[in-house]
Amino acid sequence: MELLIDTAFNASGILSPDESHHCIKVMRHREGDQVFVTDGNGTLYTCRIVKADARGCQLNVESTEERPQRHQLHMAVAPTKNIDRFEWFVEKAVEFGVSRITPIVCRHSERTNLRTERLVRLAHAAAKQSLKCTLPQIDEPTAVADIIKQSAAAQRFILHCKDGDKPHLFNAATALGTSTVVLIGPEGDFSDDEIAMAAQNGFTAASLGPERLRTETAALAACHIINLRQEV
Amino acid sequence: MELLIDTAFNASGILSPDESHHCIKVMRHREGDQVFVTDGNGTLYTCRIVKADARGCQLNVESTEERPQRHQLHMAVAPTKNIDRFEWFVEKAVEFGVSRITPIVCRHSERTNLRTERLVRLAHAAAKQSLKCTLPQIDEPTAVADIIKQSAAAQRFILHCKDGDKPHLFNAATALGTSTVVLIGPEGDFSDDEIAMAAQNGFTAASLGPERLRTETAALAACHIINLRQEV
Repeated sequence: MELLIDTAFNASGILSPDESHHCIKVMRHREGDQVFVTDGNGTLYTCRIVKADARGCQLNVESTEERPQRHQLHMAVAPTKNIDRFEWFVEKAVEFGVSRITPIVCRHSERTNLRTERLVRLAHAAAKQSLKCTLPQIDEPTAVADIIKQSAAAQRFILHCKDGDKPHLFNAATALGTSTVVLIGPEGDFSDDEIAMAAQNGFTAASLGPERLRTETAALAACHIINLRQEV
Repeated sequence: MELLIDTAFNASGILSPDESHHCIKVMRHREGDQVFVTDGNGTLYTCRIVKADARGCQLNVESTEERPQRHQLHMAVAPTKNIDRFEWFVEKAVEFGVSRITPIVCRHSERTNLRTERLVRLAHAAAKQSLKCTLPQIDEPTAVADIIKQSAAAQRFILHCKDGDKPHLFNAATALGTSTVVLIGPEGDFSDDEIAMAAQNGFTAASLGPERLRTETAALAACHIINLRQEV
């Protein structure tokens, strides 16, 4: 099964020019073939090709299925100095089912700029590959204070490496079936001010365990733990 | 804390030429500084520099601590066509604490050759970065049948994508504190013969959940699940 993504797709069955090209020229589909299209907003359309036009395929929608995301997970992660590592995180986070990624700017950030449109392309490609019917939201870089003050997620976590009063293992602290925001800091960790501000705004400090993990590995471990929570 | 790795290190305190160079020229340590050395076999030495010689540091061992691996995890994984993805898996698996990685050759393998010495270097760098005192074993490419027939691990799993009788979620099926081997197949999955051979040799078929994951993501998810099992 391969998935076509067209955010403007609906029951009228006209496929976007980009996806029409992909469907006819790359996937080499013909009239009568069955194809699967999502609007990236949770709906999966099972269709049959009526007119195999590489500039605008006409599809007949045979059935429609709602496939809502299994959980709402917002990852707010400081981009790594080596951008490959952050891009890798974005791809893998989408495979595990993240709903929103915000690159955050922190006191100790080594990188504050990045090409968001490249991350969006990567995220969409990963969503397609892993058959996600909901496209993740990728934000522009945002000050960590804004996320801390504005997040409305039911569960809020800050994962930092500082010693201190951190009794919660992230794996044990997360609850089922609710919305979650997770803050992951830069290589130089969050500042004491940032940690204090998070605590004042209802964020729980938590640990991923005894291993020393890189920023992008820690961020992915958190995504995977939330993914596992939803399975049980 | 930074870690030096010298597989021949012992109480006599002479550091290998490579690590002496790194210690003095790169880390810029001087006589009297405290440094940490592991033999890669579970022992951590806390030392002080007696003679800061870039060709052969003389260290005084102040204390010795045994840091055995928390679990024995053998990952037998088919290398991906794009070798970057497999190398990325090796690095991340070491962060999560894998003890052995075997690149396996399967019926549907798209890649059967790789530069093992490059994987070993990557694995050692990751072990150093994440403060592991046990170096993982990286094998030469091996026929999957050999792993299936020869593994002596207490828990044996094959994670494949074929439908069928697969009631076990890997996350629920793994037990605590024992040795585990996990087989992960190529992009084209294991063949029916390979799956049958594994079943005949005491391997349990298991699933990582409903998400469609790439080979290297599935392999890493399995490592992370075993890592989480040991924490509780």
